[in-house]
Amino acid sequence: MAQKPSTPKGTRDFTPIEMARRNYIFDTIREVFRLFGYRQIETPAMENLSTLMGKYGEEGDKLLFKILNSGDYLKGVDRELIENNDTTRLAAKLCDRGLRYDLTVPFARFVVQHRDELQLPFKRFQIQPVWRADRPQKGRYREFYQCDADVVGSNSLINEIELLQMEDLVFSRLGINVAIKLNNRKVLAGIAELIGEPDKLIDITVAIDKIDKIGIEKVNEELSDRGLSQQAITALRPILEIDGTGTERLNKLATLLAPSEVGTKGVEELRTVFEGTLALGLKAQLDIDVSLARGLNYYTGTIIEVKALDTEIGSISGGGRYDNLTGVFGLDGISGVGISFGADRIYDVLNALNLFPEEALKTTQVLFANFGQAEADASLKLIKQLRVNGISAEIYPDASKMKKQIGYADAIGVPYFAIVGESELAEGMVTIKNMADGTQTSIEAEKLVDFFS
Amino acid sequence: MAQKPSTPKGTRDFTPIEMARRNYIFDTIREVFRLFGYRQIETPAMENLSTLMGKYGEEGDKLLFKILNSGDYLKGVDRELIENNDTTRLAAKLCDRGLRYDLTVPFARFVVQHRDELQLPFKRFQIQPVWRADRPQKGRYREFYQCDADVVGSNSLINEIELLQMEDLVFSRLGINVAIKLNNRKVLAGIAELIGEPDKLIDITVAIDKIDKIGIEKVNEELSDRGLSQQAITALRPILEIDGTGTERLNKLATLLAPSEVGTKGVEELRTVFEGTLALGLKAQLDIDVSLARGLNYYTGTIIEVKALDTEIGSISGGGRYDNLTGVFGLDGISGVGISFGADRIYDVLNALNLFPEEALKTTQVLFANFGQAEADASLKLIKQLRVNGISAEIYPDASKMKKQIGYADAIGVPYFAIVGESELAEGMVTIKNMADGTQTSIEAEKLVDFFS
Repeated sequence: MAQKPSTPKGTRDFTPIEMARRNYIFDTIREVFRLFGYRQIETPAMENLSTLMGKYGEEGDKLLFKILNSGDYLKGVDRELIENNDTTRLAAKLCDRGLRYDLTVPFARFVVQHRDELQLPFKRFQIQPVWRADRPQKGRYREFYQCDADVVGSNSLINEIELLQMEDLVFSRLGINVAIKLNNRKVLAGIAELIGEPDKLIDITVAIDKIDKIGIEKVNEELSDRGLSQQAITALRPILEIDGTGTERLNKLATLLAPSEVGTKGVEELRTVFEGTLALGLKAQLDIDVSLARGLNYYTGTIIEVKALDTEIGSISGGGRYDNLTGVFGLDGISGVGISFGADRIYDVLNALNLFPEEALKTTQVLFANFGQAEADASLKLIKQLRVNGISAEIYPDASKMKKQIGYADAIGVPYFAIVGESELAEGMVTIKNMADGTQTSIEAEKLVDFFS
Repeated sequence: MAQKPSTPKGTRDFTPIEMARRNYIFDTIREVFRLFGYRQIETPAMENLSTLMGKYGEEGDKLLFKILNSGDYLKGVDRELIENNDTTRLAAKLCDRGLRYDLTVPFARFVVQHRDELQLPFKRFQIQPVWRADRPQKGRYREFYQCDADVVGSNSLINEIELLQMEDLVFSRLGINVAIKLNNRKVLAGIAELIGEPDKLIDITVAIDKIDKIGIEKVNEELSDRGLSQQAITALRPILEIDGTGTERLNKLATLLAPSEVGTKGVEELRTVFEGTLALGLKAQLDIDVSLARGLNYYTGTIIEVKALDTEIGSISGGGRYDNLTGVFGLDGISGVGISFGADRIYDVLNALNLFPEEALKTTQVLFANFGQAEADASLKLIKQLRVNGISAEIYPDASKMKKQIGYADAIGVPYFAIVGESELAEGMVTIKNMADGTQTSIEAEKLVDFFS
């Protein structure tokens, strides 16, 4: 026998039970996106490499899956590139296209390409797989789904408030307790300005992002290693030690950052979003967290991160505002704000906390036994009536031994097993076996639809 | 400004209106698959090339999109392949993986890989994109969706009857009038045997497949060119001229093919499937068509094709039985039967016949105007109540000119525009403008949910 075939490293098949669980997550997210007026788009799996390259840093470029050109792909390729083993530049000659790495760059490309047809603000959502040639490890795959919602073309903070409500609604519907953490890039810029190190914004945020993990003393060591003056580190301390309720934190931040224009603007934005969201009520815990520095490279205003509270899995959603989404494609002045849900991590949380509802995983409602031609013919007529009434039903296709048929019913998790044998056929009855408790009921064939409705 | 970015040749973006239409098609198909007890799986976009190569013929191998290996992909590559411009063998060194070309080979791989976990018969459906490096032309894309349902591990013809009911239900739900054409590979084998040319089965079927297009005389010319004796062509004629109702055709075929064992078996199978399907009733026209030779390379029994009746678009679905789905992966004796829906063609039919229902394309139900902070705060509270009750609602995020806000409402096709201005706010009222007829209604804010329910 040939070697057993398998999926490529880092990729996965999804079996029916896994699909039912995944669909439960996607359906929940999609329904919330729609309730909020977000509209779905899809983009192709492959993009021109000119669209993708240079958008994710040098490391990201390496993680792009590149597609070999069709036909005579060696034509016109400088053989020196091969002799010099210059794989990076050679790849650019061999490949014109690559698989999308995220949904944000294709969305920016979409906005620019279709700008004449689009009515701004444009609220779009997109649920599609992305591919990264990362080293596979537990919880990290080379193909995974992203679920993104973004608005472009509006600076209003109402968008942030709406997005936070969406986070809250998705996770309350999924039954996951979460903390939503809020920050603002302008607050971070204000802090850097205030402590006299405006050019070290990235170093500061990279370090303070680690406070939860390594503690303030280690963070200070790292800041020192990164060239921050002792004076600046001392000035930073009271900011990092801000605590209390969200409102208390905002008030303290406002006082501390009063000397900085950008910092003050950041605190104002943060307050508007925080108070606006609280005013509408939410189930999630809403925190102000100045150590949140997620995605600093592109966010320019609000920064959002959502953590599951009852597991160690950590961040399961996040997002923020970026002032110039489409600038890389030559269209300036289009601001965006959005959130993204990590379906794989949400799956792991629901699994770990045993939160997948039975209802979401149900399969066919009733499987009919097969006792041969005459009984099957009668069963197929009943099944047709059930299906017309929206009840999923099937018949075991072969007149196999009953043990095998019941084994199949068990394996696919069907709640009812229907028997139309010789005697039932003669009497116009159906015997219904409840697979959960083994009880049997005999009902008239005409009343079958009512039974399952 | 940089050059306007675009999707790669042969690939497409789907805008919100296109997505709504496509989802209507996918949802209809998925719902029918589920009603019949088919269970969803997904497989990765990329497969090992060892899984894909050699499964679609030499031409198919060339149409596979191959993914350049990561890292030092030149390592160990024989430079002679490059010097000799042997792009085919070189590609096999540069690339270990490719994008899936259809859903059938990945499904076969899935069955073999997971055979220890699978309970046979296994009824699976799969709705995912596939990729082919074909020359793009009208209606032919390099990325397109397939919607497949297959059963493996059961030889029962009940499966065929079920699949034909699924074809009927999908197209009756979509409102497309169709003819379902039925044939059986064994009937074709019987014909070849009967006319004394059992080795020319492929030539015969390729030629008679064209009868509708070029007529019987041209088909006979082609058969002659393909080396069929005049005697065989003469013997074939009465079979090709069989007409009448399905039952009449079956009876004539049974008589003509009586001398052939395989032909007689084929007619019996055809009769069981035809009569079994008619007995359950169907909306579609069901035809016996011996000129149907679709997918002959792999089908071994039933052959199914569905044509839209009111357009020239032709085949929109089809399928058949294949006796040895997983044999290529070393697992013999697993028979399968399945159907596939062509979403792009169905889209074109629905579009051409104007059959997309309004309901399927509806977007947000109500857009609230934005008159500034106080009014927006009140509107957001009302919107939250609507959403809790499953009514999709949104607010224009900026307090822009009313003309702009109404323009947006128009562009996204929202049926109602809600106004909470200063006076409405004072009185606890909301003015609802019906966007279709321009009429306005004033209702109490508390009754808003009832109004939209």
